[in-house]
Amino acid sequence: MALIVQKFGGTSVANAERIFNVANRVIETYDSDNDVVVVVSAQGDTTDDLIEKAKEINPRASKREMDVLLSTGEQQSMALLAMAIEKLGRPVISLAAWQVGLATDSNYSNARIKRVMGNRIQTELDKHKIVIVAGFQGINKFDDVTTLGRGGSDTSAVALAAALGAELCQIFTDVRGVYTADPRIVPNAKQLTDISFDEMLELASLGANVLHNRSVEVARKYNVNLEVLSSLEKAPGTVVKEVNSVEKMLVRGVARDNDVARISLVNLDNTPGKAFQVFGLLAKHKINVDVIIQSIGRGGKKDISFTVPLGSLDTVLDVLEKNRELIGAEHIDHTENISKVSIVGVGMASNTGVAATMFEALYDAGININMISTSEIKISVLIDKRDAERAVRAIHDKFNLGD
Amino acid sequence: MALIVQKFGGTSVANAERIFNVANRVIETYDSDNDVVVVVSAQGDTTDDLIEKAKEINPRASKREMDVLLSTGEQQSMALLAMAIEKLGRPVISLAAWQVGLATDSNYSNARIKRVMGNRIQTELDKHKIVIVAGFQGINKFDDVTTLGRGGSDTSAVALAAALGAELCQIFTDVRGVYTADPRIVPNAKQLTDISFDEMLELASLGANVLHNRSVEVARKYNVNLEVLSSLEKAPGTVVKEVNSVEKMLVRGVARDNDVARISLVNLDNTPGKAFQVFGLLAKHKINVDVIIQSIGRGGKKDISFTVPLGSLDTVLDVLEKNRELIGAEHIDHTENISKVSIVGVGMASNTGVAATMFEALYDAGININMISTSEIKISVLIDKRDAERAVRAIHDKFNLGD
Repeated sequence: MALIVQKFGGTSVANAERIFNVANRVIETYDSDNDVVVVVSAQGDTTDDLIEKAKEINPRASKREMDVLLSTGEQQSMALLAMAIEKLGRPVISLAAWQVGLATDSNYSNARIKRVMGNRIQTELDKHKIVIVAGFQGINKFDDVTTLGRGGSDTSAVALAAALGAELCQIFTDVRGVYTADPRIVPNAKQLTDISFDEMLELASLGANVLHNRSVEVARKYNVNLEVLSSLEKAPGTVVKEVNSVEKMLVRGVARDNDVARISLVNLDNTPGKAFQVFGLLAKHKINVDVIIQSIGRGGKKDISFTVPLGSLDTVLDVLEKNRELIGAEHIDHTENISKVSIVGVGMASNTGVAATMFEALYDAGININMISTSEIKISVLIDKRDAERAVRAIHDKFNLGD
Repeated sequence: MALIVQKFGGTSVANAERIFNVANRVIETYDSDNDVVVVVSAQGDTTDDLIEKAKEINPRASKREMDVLLSTGEQQSMALLAMAIEKLGRPVISLAAWQVGLATDSNYSNARIKRVMGNRIQTELDKHKIVIVAGFQGINKFDDVTTLGRGGSDTSAVALAAALGAELCQIFTDVRGVYTADPRIVPNAKQLTDISFDEMLELASLGANVLHNRSVEVARKYNVNLEVLSSLEKAPGTVVKEVNSVEKMLVRGVARDNDVARISLVNLDNTPGKAFQVFGLLAKHKINVDVIIQSIGRGGKKDISFTVPLGSLDTVLDVLEKNRELIGAEHIDHTENISKVSIVGVGMASNTGVAATMFEALYDAGININMISTSEIKISVLIDKRDAERAVRAIHDKFNLGD
């Protein structure tokens, strides 16, 4: 008897038929003598529909009330899935975050899980019930509802798996697992049988769209066995684990991220503390800044360019505009017409020539590089949005990642 | 500074425009230096839509999971109303039943409020916030979500008013108040400026559709000042209060109830305990039986006829059929083609001739009476459904209740 946490996303529970499909997958695991905790997202477009409804009333609604509104989507899908499992004759109960005691900080709309009181779930498991938990939501110390940000249900699942000491946390999605590149862009992209937490982290945050990156962080921290697999077909998925020594590939995958905007502060005074001023300001507004490039100062002036998620662009421009004098930039430019393309692999840092090979692939394809950023296990370039898919294919070919 | 509880129904918050209408009504009260607690129902058809969704998956879903599902409707509307009030620049917070501590029994789908912990609301009122509370929902001792049955938001509002010691509980609805009869049936029906709890109770349970009857029971028990008024126009409503001595009208109103089915048990053995057997059985299945008539036994046999809400008919027939031998009836007849028409007024019991006048009105209109039932303050007759509106008009005229 093992305890398995299974997470199903919004597409997997979009209608009655798919809900029964999920119910059957859950029951199969339950009937194989396992305890099962299921985490569900809101059905299909529910969250987007609710956001629309809120915007119609107040585009600047408080995040607290947005979270109250959005959290209802998961409560609906957990009840509907419970009803399907009841129909199939298995004991089941659905629980919201406040019932489970899924405690977060008070950063509404993007809260972080602090701890999970597992006792209510354990009580229900002891009664041999299938337990369904609403993903994406938590409660803070004021007993108010919070949400974990887009894709937060993955994090809910991993946090529950960690708190309950689950043997396995399965993330069901609409792809079979993690690929060397997005199969919609690169037809011969290959599925990976396993991948390390670090690689998965870079891929998730780079727009591979398979796992929410915070869920991978939590899984790594608590050493949760994670598997990404298809909710539609029965096939082995990709296992995410601590040490990756099975496949010796240098570059594990190519990812593209379109959710990126670039801002340039042109002709800043070349005095110390400029970067601190700018990014301190943005941090105060909880903006996630990604790639940062600062040009070498000449003639007493310098430029700073950086990228942020598209959704933060308006806030960033607003903040910069309001503090224009303090920052002292001549121009503030920005563009949304940009993509980030990255290669990821744990072996990269200790291997020379990986970056050169990537740049060569782009040169051969006639693609201009805007900005470059590197880390231990990844190399990212910013290029024109219209070149992004071509770039992914060229790099994927160059490193022979395909089948 | 007074504390006022205001309740708005589903029609009042059906779309963005109406939500702002409600927000303005609330703010008007708040700006007149009052503390305001607002209770909202789910938007328009939300509850019906959710019921449909559940039926598609499992028509026999557990009531616990139905309550989890249905309670999301009120959580959505409370958040949306909060956003509208935020937009209009007043401090506001929305709270669900579990946050308010609105404790009920565990009779899912039709739970009764046991007590309300008002401290969270008081804390928010002390911060001078407008507090919005989800109607219709509660939590039981297991920390599970319950719902209070159709129209339960009225009861939520009155229970909160009682627990918080509110000066006034205003129930906003789509009519101006309580009338001597349904104005859609009787064009010259007159609005009452006040009405006693007892009269209101009879009218509510007799299908006047203005207030949920349990809300009136709670208001009477805790002596809550209740006012029924229009959410659409600004006009004085009808005050429901303990003693009614302002208007000296004998008959206060005429009500029609179409939500009624009649069951007849024909040719029962005329032995003691029959009524106990039948109604004990129905009570065990939580069926509300209304009018009961037993014919005088002759020839060793008797008939028992009674009425139940339409929604209970299938269950009742099922229960009776399963216990046919025990009951020992020759036939079990039933009809849905029936209406209950009633007159209500506190002075009736001590006045002779009221019943006779009512029956005369029906005789003059050529309407046949099926069953008669009387209490201290009401007289009800069961008649053919097609005669019901005519009957209401005839009685209303006979007692000169109109303007």
